[in-house]
Amino acid sequence: MDSLGYSLLFLVFSSIWACTTQFYIPRLGTIRRTSQHEPPTTSSSDKEDYKTFYYTQELDHFNYRPDSYATFQQRYVINSKYWGGADSNAPIFAYLGEEGPLDDDVFSIGFLSDNALRFKALQVYIEHRYYGKSVPFGSMKKALKNASTRGYFNSAQAIADYAAVLLHVKKNLSAEYSPVIAIGGSYGGMLAAWFRLKYPHVVLGSLASSAPILYFDDISPQAGYYSLVTKDFKETSKSCYETIRESWTEIDRVASRPHGLSTLSKRFNTCGQLNESSDLKYYLENIITEAAQYNAPPKYPLSVICSAIDGATVGTDTLGRIYAAVVAYKGNRSCHDMNEYNYPTETNEGWRWQSCSEMVMPIGHDTNGSMFPSSPFNLSEIIDECKSLYGVEPRPHWVTTYYGGHDLKLILRKFASNIIFSNGLKDPYSSGGVVENISDTIIAVSTINGSHCLDILVANSSTDPQWLVKQRMVEIKIIKKWIAKYKADLLAFKQLIPI
Amino acid sequence: MDSLGYSLLFLVFSSIWACTTQFYIPRLGTIRRTSQHEPPTTSSSDKEDYKTFYYTQELDHFNYRPDSYATFQQRYVINSKYWGGADSNAPIFAYLGEEGPLDDDVFSIGFLSDNALRFKALQVYIEHRYYGKSVPFGSMKKALKNASTRGYFNSAQAIADYAAVLLHVKKNLSAEYSPVIAIGGSYGGMLAAWFRLKYPHVVLGSLASSAPILYFDDISPQAGYYSLVTKDFKETSKSCYETIRESWTEIDRVASRPHGLSTLSKRFNTCGQLNESSDLKYYLENIITEAAQYNAPPKYPLSVICSAIDGATVGTDTLGRIYAAVVAYKGNRSCHDMNEYNYPTETNEGWRWQSCSEMVMPIGHDTNGSMFPSSPFNLSEIIDECKSLYGVEPRPHWVTTYYGGHDLKLILRKFASNIIFSNGLKDPYSSGGVVENISDTIIAVSTINGSHCLDILVANSSTDPQWLVKQRMVEIKIIKKWIAKYKADLLAFKQLIPI
Repeated sequence: MDSLGYSLLFLVFSSIWACTTQFYIPRLGTIRRTSQHEPPTTSSSDKEDYKTFYYTQELDHFNYRPDSYATFQQRYVINSKYWGGADSNAPIFAYLGEEGPLDDDVFSIGFLSDNALRFKALQVYIEHRYYGKSVPFGSMKKALKNASTRGYFNSAQAIADYAAVLLHVKKNLSAEYSPVIAIGGSYGGMLAAWFRLKYPHVVLGSLASSAPILYFDDISPQAGYYSLVTKDFKETSKSCYETIRESWTEIDRVASRPHGLSTLSKRFNTCGQLNESSDLKYYLENIITEAAQYNAPPKYPLSVICSAIDGATVGTDTLGRIYAAVVAYKGNRSCHDMNEYNYPTETNEGWRWQSCSEMVMPIGHDTNGSMFPSSPFNLSEIIDECKSLYGVEPRPHWVTTYYGGHDLKLILRKFASNIIFSNGLKDPYSSGGVVENISDTIIAVSTINGSHCLDILVANSSTDPQWLVKQRMVEIKIIKKWIAKYKADLLAFKQLIPI
Repeated sequence: MDSLGYSLLFLVFSSIWACTTQFYIPRLGTIRRTSQHEPPTTSSSDKEDYKTFYYTQELDHFNYRPDSYATFQQRYVINSKYWGGADSNAPIFAYLGEEGPLDDDVFSIGFLSDNALRFKALQVYIEHRYYGKSVPFGSMKKALKNASTRGYFNSAQAIADYAAVLLHVKKNLSAEYSPVIAIGGSYGGMLAAWFRLKYPHVVLGSLASSAPILYFDDISPQAGYYSLVTKDFKETSKSCYETIRESWTEIDRVASRPHGLSTLSKRFNTCGQLNESSDLKYYLENIITEAAQYNAPPKYPLSVICSAIDGATVGTDTLGRIYAAVVAYKGNRSCHDMNEYNYPTETNEGWRWQSCSEMVMPIGHDTNGSMFPSSPFNLSEIIDECKSLYGVEPRPHWVTTYYGGHDLKLILRKFASNIIFSNGLKDPYSSGGVVENISDTIIAVSTINGSHCLDILVANSSTDPQWLVKQRMVEIKIIKKWIAKYKADLLAFKQLIPI
């Protein structure tokens, strides 16, 4: 237990940082649809262009045990409205699903639909195994219950799935020479980058948005995430930052008084009486980090929070200011559910397993310049708790063993090509992202003000700031260059070797 | 059953084509130590420099099932006599074990020991899982008996093993920045190439000797192997080639006569009476193909065979000439064992499983210009027989799905680097090898006269022909260039990012 009073494990396991923002996706909680963040409206005729398919996918690509040959139905969605066709080798944009059902992504990941016409691209969206409708063994709940069935739920299998689906789609369409561009965000962005590294024969290039591929092992500072949240708040308003920094001890102080928890429950209008002050602190930390991570236009939730904190009437105490921020951020609810970030959603349950097996991201926070109390990452604690939860130990070094990550600039400068690592530098996860060019074709496209996955979400010409429009244009230009180069190579190749 | 009269499957499954040549390793049979091919003498003091270690290896890198966490002891051998040490980032030469026990390879794969002093290189030899002393579940026999235990026996697991061992060795020696050069031949050469493609963060470059990575799916002509054997014989002696070409029908003709099998048994001095003429034909085909595949100096077994065929006294009939070749090739034995190529050695048993699961190489022969009777590759037959043997179906497309192979020049020209594909163009497996440069750093080094894996075997200054010496020098020069470039990059990298 750390000084915030709640289990470290709890914190780490509920690290969800998907891309979809028609609702907020908290870093430390569950996906929620809130009234203030409606999904973008899509006309029904548009929706009809998206056709759902299922691919009979093998459970275990990497072994030849009888169990390995079990299959499941993997969902993918295709929109061929703008596709230029196989004859002209028109490109295929492939969205690689992340830790959640595909449904919402299809309409919120705008990079494909917004650019399909421009590129005459086929749009393919593939769901990640064990999520949504692509679940072996019936349901996520059922699959996760059993030690044997959940064991196949990991990233290496997932990108092998993507390879199989894409080869299948290309073959079906006789589009063997249509270049594939993979697009993914957050965890899906890591998959997109790794997919290009492992399957260059399936994918020509990848746009890896907000992909913290360096947040493993000892590559990035463990405190990077929380340091950036702190920096974001400090830059927005020093007094806002100070109020938040003071709030934790203030909560502890009030909690330790007679009827302290009752007082806190009343002051924060909690649904039910608080059992421990840590529940409140956990709830607040979720709000704060997700506001920083998803500080997107046009509403800029971080500013919403700081405006509420700073704008409270003179004389309002620290807790009053924090509560004002909660109301401003969440809306004036009848009460605030401290468990909101722990709902056992599919995403929460799935990611808990993934982060307890291979996705061991050592995120901690120290007090050094942070507005959060110290709470260092504790690997041995994680290992113990994972073992007690799932019976197996995490493999904290497997990601760097299989995908690499150390000394990326040294390793990839002369190997690999065609990856865009895009980051918004206000996104706390950019602290584990690639924010420097590695070579001429492995390129970092960062924006000072961007937040998590912003560039691949649906464009909004009336509210998108200029820097975001520009970021996307840079990405489009790079991808165009890849495709042009590929087509020239293909021509030369085909003349050399008649096909 | 093909026109040669024996099961196609039998043919394909006994395809063993390892590198070690202190004894002949037949393409279609078992590893045998013959009196005429003694292992190179190694002084005992040299042998003492090779230390054996065991690494606790995970059974299943790719899943998180409880069974995945089982471990086995993987053998590796280190010779640090010439190593320049971690401080100078002196290189590491890593031999990636193939389909057999490591023991023989350590002293027959000369590329490491012959060049260790020149490069101040550490020599590491790693045994392939399920062979030799690196067998999970007790013994190869025991491991193969059970459908669950044999399922982890495949190439993706094997190269993940190599990554784990090498990272462990580097860490132990504090040699994180020592560049690793992987060396492998035949199947091990494919592993070396794939290892560089999948684990560029572990290995700087690979020497893939006689690696037929294109002999999968529909990439190479199925008849390539046998066409090259035919070509080799034809180029050596037209009459030799014609005698062999005629021998098959001659055998059938004799066999169909009264007491024909008895006649054949006597004429070929078989150990025990022949049950079918196909046993004899299978035996002869093995001799012929292995002579072509391992047609190495100083003895050039293919020439030995043709000299015997052509040099028989005038009036000797076809079968007499063929038998003379058998005696010349095998030595004057008390009798000839028609089962010699089917001994259930570890290599035979192991490769049978590997080729029945993922290593489905579509090798067939047609009559078009071939000196062999028609015997096309029949995938559905293979699938049926594998299923009946092991209960699971082969995955004939997995190698190209995971590693690629189609349109290599198009795919890898702008991706990857630092692979030497070396081939002797007389080696029938070169028909599935990379024999053209792909880029400035993915280079084909072929020799017109070379046979299987010749370049990586122990050098012999008194008998090696000039073209072989030259081939090795070209390889050394390329590897030197890789290392020099790496060291320059490392310097720049370390100055940029203080370590």
